Amino acid sequence: MTNAKRLEGVLSPVVTPYTPDYEPDLPRLIAHCRWLLSQDCGLAVFGTNSEGNSLSVDERIELLEGLVDAGVDPKRMMPGTGCSALSDTVRLTKRATALGVAGTLVLPPFYYKGVSDEGLYRSFSEVIQRVGDAKLRMYLYHIPPVSQVPITLGLLERLLKEYPEQVAGVKDSSGDWSNTKAMLDAFPGFGVFAGSELFLLDTMRNGGAGCISATANINPAAIHRLFATWQNADADAQQAQLAELRKFVQSFPMIPALKQTVAHFNGHPGWARLRPPLVELTEAEAQGLISGLEQRGFTMPGLGKAA
Amino acid sequence: MTNAKRLEGVLSPVVTPYTPDYEPDLPRLIAHCRWLLSQDCGLAVFGTNSEGNSLSVDERIELLEGLVDAGVDPKRMMPGTGCSALSDTVRLTKRATALGVAGTLVLPPFYYKGVSDEGLYRSFSEVIQRVGDAKLRMYLYHIPPVSQVPITLGLLERLLKEYPEQVAGVKDSSGDWSNTKAMLDAFPGFGVFAGSELFLLDTMRNGGAGCISATANINPAAIHRLFATWQNADADAQQAQLAELRKFVQSFPMIPALKQTVAHFNGHPGWARLRPPLVELTEAEAQGLISGLEQRGFTMPGLGKAA
Repeated sequence: MTNAKRLEGVLSPVVTPYTPDYEPDLPRLIAHCRWLLSQDCGLAVFGTNSEGNSLSVDERIELLEGLVDAGVDPKRMMPGTGCSALSDTVRLTKRATALGVAGTLVLPPFYYKGVSDEGLYRSFSEVIQRVGDAKLRMYLYHIPPVSQVPITLGLLERLLKEYPEQVAGVKDSSGDWSNTKAMLDAFPGFGVFAGSELFLLDTMRNGGAGCISATANINPAAIHRLFATWQNADADAQQAQLAELRKFVQSFPMIPALKQTVAHFNGHPGWARLRPPLVELTEAEAQGLISGLEQRGFTMPGLGKAA
Repeated sequence: MTNAKRLEGVLSPVVTPYTPDYEPDLPRLIAHCRWLLSQDCGLAVFGTNSEGNSLSVDERIELLEGLVDAGVDPKRMMPGTGCSALSDTVRLTKRATALGVAGTLVLPPFYYKGVSDEGLYRSFSEVIQRVGDAKLRMYLYHIPPVSQVPITLGLLERLLKEYPEQVAGVKDSSGDWSNTKAMLDAFPGFGVFAGSELFLLDTMRNGGAGCISATANINPAAIHRLFATWQNADADAQQAQLAELRKFVQSFPMIPALKQTVAHFNGHPGWARLRPPLVELTEAEAQGLISGLEQRGFTMPGLGKAA
């Protein structure tokens, strides 16, 4: 059921640090990526929780090149490269692929709503053909609560038939396990990543590839442990423990909560900054988050050493 | 109630022609803009119906420069410049303003949903400050059915207080007259454009600036006539006639219907092409549209002469 060569594991949509001028802070991003790798966590930079769509294509290419120049292994990366404009998606996907990333996480074009599967097929097909690189491995990004444009089973089936090598997998952030299960059942061996560790154990038991999860930014080791030991007797207990922490964190606005947590355990308040239109937690929220984490004995061992 | 210096009239979100490779076709865009100007219609290039968000910032800057180089008057333009990434919105708005456009139509950042007014305030405020050009005239673009991110009255009020010169108006494409009316009532003299000619007469009677309407691509003269003569006795009859045609056209998918109509009356089938993820009308839809237009005695006088 599994394909030995496919990408598997736990990845984090790496949160993006900003300077006081809301410019991306490359040195701090490098440091956080290194810490995540030290925790066996792959790097889905420029995902939704990375504020990826608040960055221009030029900014994303510059950050990606900066990471690779700093020695961060592109084979551990799956950058988000799906933009609203076809030309942007092509340029970013092409550059990321040329840099040697393991895969690219590609949103459908997300401005127009109610678009047809035919239109989405043409869009992904154009991207694949224009990138024109045998190394391209595309993971389609299904996140209807945000993009409002779904990736249907019918679209996947058609793309897989035409591009079995390039269309390598999917990230399902629908939050609907029955949809993830339907993808796993329909396409055995396909690289299906759950969009949250809440579904990691179920995903692994059904032949999936792992998960790409917001909270892997702060809790990567425990999530990776479940990925690595999902056949062990304590897997359900591990899953329950992951879920408890996840549900606490997601009781706050997710992206500011992740950045507040990194800021706190890193000792750098600037890490809490978000680029507009997103805003940081209120003082009261931030206190509630940190005290709740401390009550749970939560730590981020080794964080900040490389910064 | 009206401000003598404010921009007023009928504008069209100019449809964007593509080559067979889905590249923007500048010469045909210039020709269509010239025809619209000849019909007293202003140029809201890169709007929703222009497939504006299917074009990269570089592509939009190139087209804008090409139009200005060709002698199309920037004072008749209100290009769409609102992108998902703050840095993209700043770059495009800055270049458009430097080129001397009358205004820029600025979407809120539209990837993240459920964002706060505080976050949107910061976003627009950053754009204004980074563009840093006294000539900037920003029209905020309220189109919740597509962007899913509304421009609230509270946000407008706060922005107008801080930036009374730069925040020049709004385009209301909510399709909800009570919202347009609330904007007109709350901010007398503010440049409120209806998002459709269906609300043109009501907008003018309540002190508005005009409309920016998809169907102005194909029916500009009649829409302008109502704008110019809204105080005449036949205004309600004109409005009813405009509404009848509009409702027929919008019984088809709007953007492909506009392009099919231009293609037909221009004698250039390539005009019907859309960039993915949008798709053209089916054969049957196209026939139904054109025969319906012909039954109504619809024409586009002078179209195609300059192409």
